[in-house]
Amino acid sequence: MLERYGHGGDLWTAEEAFGQPKEAFLDFSSNMNPLGPPQAVKIILSEGWRDIVKYPDPAVRELRSKLSAKYAIPVESILVGNGAAELIDLTARVLKPKVTGLARPSFSEYEEAVHKSGGEIYNIPLQAEYQFELQQQDVEAAYASVDLFFLGHPNNPTGKLIPGPVLEGLVQSGHRCVLDEAFMEFVPNEQDHSLLQQAANNPQLLVIRSMTKFYSIPGIRLGFMVAHPDWIRQIEQLQVQWSVNYLAQRIGSSVLDDVDYESKSWQWLHEEKTWLIQQLGQLGLEVVSSEVNFLLFSFPLSMGITVKQAQQHMGQQGILIRDASLFEGLDERYCRVAIRLREDNERLIAGLHNMLSDFKMNRG
Amino acid sequence: MLERYGHGGDLWTAEEAFGQPKEAFLDFSSNMNPLGPPQAVKIILSEGWRDIVKYPDPAVRELRSKLSAKYAIPVESILVGNGAAELIDLTARVLKPKVTGLARPSFSEYEEAVHKSGGEIYNIPLQAEYQFELQQQDVEAAYASVDLFFLGHPNNPTGKLIPGPVLEGLVQSGHRCVLDEAFMEFVPNEQDHSLLQQAANNPQLLVIRSMTKFYSIPGIRLGFMVAHPDWIRQIEQLQVQWSVNYLAQRIGSSVLDDVDYESKSWQWLHEEKTWLIQQLGQLGLEVVSSEVNFLLFSFPLSMGITVKQAQQHMGQQGILIRDASLFEGLDERYCRVAIRLREDNERLIAGLHNMLSDFKMNRG
Repeated sequence: MLERYGHGGDLWTAEEAFGQPKEAFLDFSSNMNPLGPPQAVKIILSEGWRDIVKYPDPAVRELRSKLSAKYAIPVESILVGNGAAELIDLTARVLKPKVTGLARPSFSEYEEAVHKSGGEIYNIPLQAEYQFELQQQDVEAAYASVDLFFLGHPNNPTGKLIPGPVLEGLVQSGHRCVLDEAFMEFVPNEQDHSLLQQAANNPQLLVIRSMTKFYSIPGIRLGFMVAHPDWIRQIEQLQVQWSVNYLAQRIGSSVLDDVDYESKSWQWLHEEKTWLIQQLGQLGLEVVSSEVNFLLFSFPLSMGITVKQAQQHMGQQGILIRDASLFEGLDERYCRVAIRLREDNERLIAGLHNMLSDFKMNRG
Repeated sequence: MLERYGHGGDLWTAEEAFGQPKEAFLDFSSNMNPLGPPQAVKIILSEGWRDIVKYPDPAVRELRSKLSAKYAIPVESILVGNGAAELIDLTARVLKPKVTGLARPSFSEYEEAVHKSGGEIYNIPLQAEYQFELQQQDVEAAYASVDLFFLGHPNNPTGKLIPGPVLEGLVQSGHRCVLDEAFMEFVPNEQDHSLLQQAANNPQLLVIRSMTKFYSIPGIRLGFMVAHPDWIRQIEQLQVQWSVNYLAQRIGSSVLDDVDYESKSWQWLHEEKTWLIQQLGQLGLEVVSSEVNFLLFSFPLSMGITVKQAQQHMGQQGILIRDASLFEGLDERYCRVAIRLREDNERLIAGLHNMLSDFKMNRG
């Protein structure tokens, strides 16, 4: 299986599994912005390579100041991390929750971080019949049992924001809550949905962001979080010295200025999501509507196809898709794909078409 | 003070303190190989920048395999980290020592890691009268009190290897020991001194290496450790997903092939260390002999100069030196400088000469 290390986008395992070089694969299993890294990344790496003879700024001063200006948040409430993964881990270690409410399905790192810090999990179901939207009554049912909520907003792999009233109720309830907004930048009018600013001075609310998905730079590792300064200080104390490398800091500081990249990204996603949902639907697949740059879909029972079979077949065609049955709460028919540029999306659709035809023939 | 965040090489703080741009400083406060990054680094960053659209290999397969071949150690005994700092932290968290024996002075990260994991420190003195070499009787005196030794080999800031018989006695005693070999590659015939290979199958011995000092790439963060596979598995479980970024993995894999860079480095160090020790001596400074690429020296009492005064004066000349009085066990007269290329070393000597003249004049 491609998710040997728990996630998509593992081209090394793909190479081992399908005997083709890493470069040969078209990767729909990780959710990167297909516009590729902003121009500033090329300049920083190709012209500024000599700068890696310097230690990174231990206090990440430039990038924190840029984030502060962009989101109107005091620098004391901002911590930059070696990818959102580091911040998820550090947050769980500092909050030390006894019982954490997790939506199912959701990103596996929350559970891992909670287990590492010695806590237990309370499952909050997301149901297909509600299009996997978090329901008010399910959150309220958890109040008596949990001392922390750790939620994706929007959630991965479902692509859903937490509905406004549900989120408002949760925040007002006074329960501690960590929101992972890793994909928030893909949401049109993110400022209407993000709780970044609230997190800066609400000690019950912490928000984690990734910068690698929207700017397509997962190789360099970069994320940040916003929380009350007391939390930031505690979390920072556990962080390893120079955790955020020099190039990540430079790149992060530069891409934030690229407003053109932002608008191009939103325009691409607006057009392409509609097209891909329609195409997947025409293949007979059951697609969950999404606020972001990836889609969850399932093979209808009548097709008799498991996602593991699909992943195998597609991998042999050089196309990587995500086995979503590995997310707790989804069965063997669920698959997740990133939305890419039209030409690639056409190859995905053609590949799925081939696969479905082959399966039909073998059954017929 | 320049070591606001606990270490040398902080050009951001230097900029704030001395009002000159980062680029203007000649940095003797961090211990990088002055030959600069090997040629492969330039090629990877300037030609391979687009590759950061890929997630790093979660299992760091290529670099671990290269390290395995170079040092003749099974891959199962190798873990790569986001700088040696991450591995120091993870090791302390997994070993959970109650009382750790630290040589004084030594690198401050050991103490921080031990404190973070809830342990206490037992001080093992390194004494000027023995040229700061670790003494057998001081190690043996610690046996009854400690359940872990965490030692630099060679040690920072003293530049001393642990003497062979002392190290042998320690390993044979069966006490748990972590060796930080961050500067071992600078030691001529490192294979005669390094315990990397022994660590691969001795569960009482763990060895941590940095790759950023010798290859002059601190900005990208890279280190590795060697230990019994049981330890490696436990430590890996605490490591954050994708902790080692893609560029660090690529760079690490490439520089290991550059044997020419190695021999040039050893040749430079052999020549330059002799020269710089002599020059510092001629200024009347008391230099500790060193196995590596940095020198600890002190201002004789008769000069009446503290290192803080010296750092201030030199900083205003655009030269950064390390306040070694911040290492527990050293007094206010101790200073550490990196060994650089001749031209830079001449500027250091000229700067120190200016300073000493100024102080003499002010006292006269």
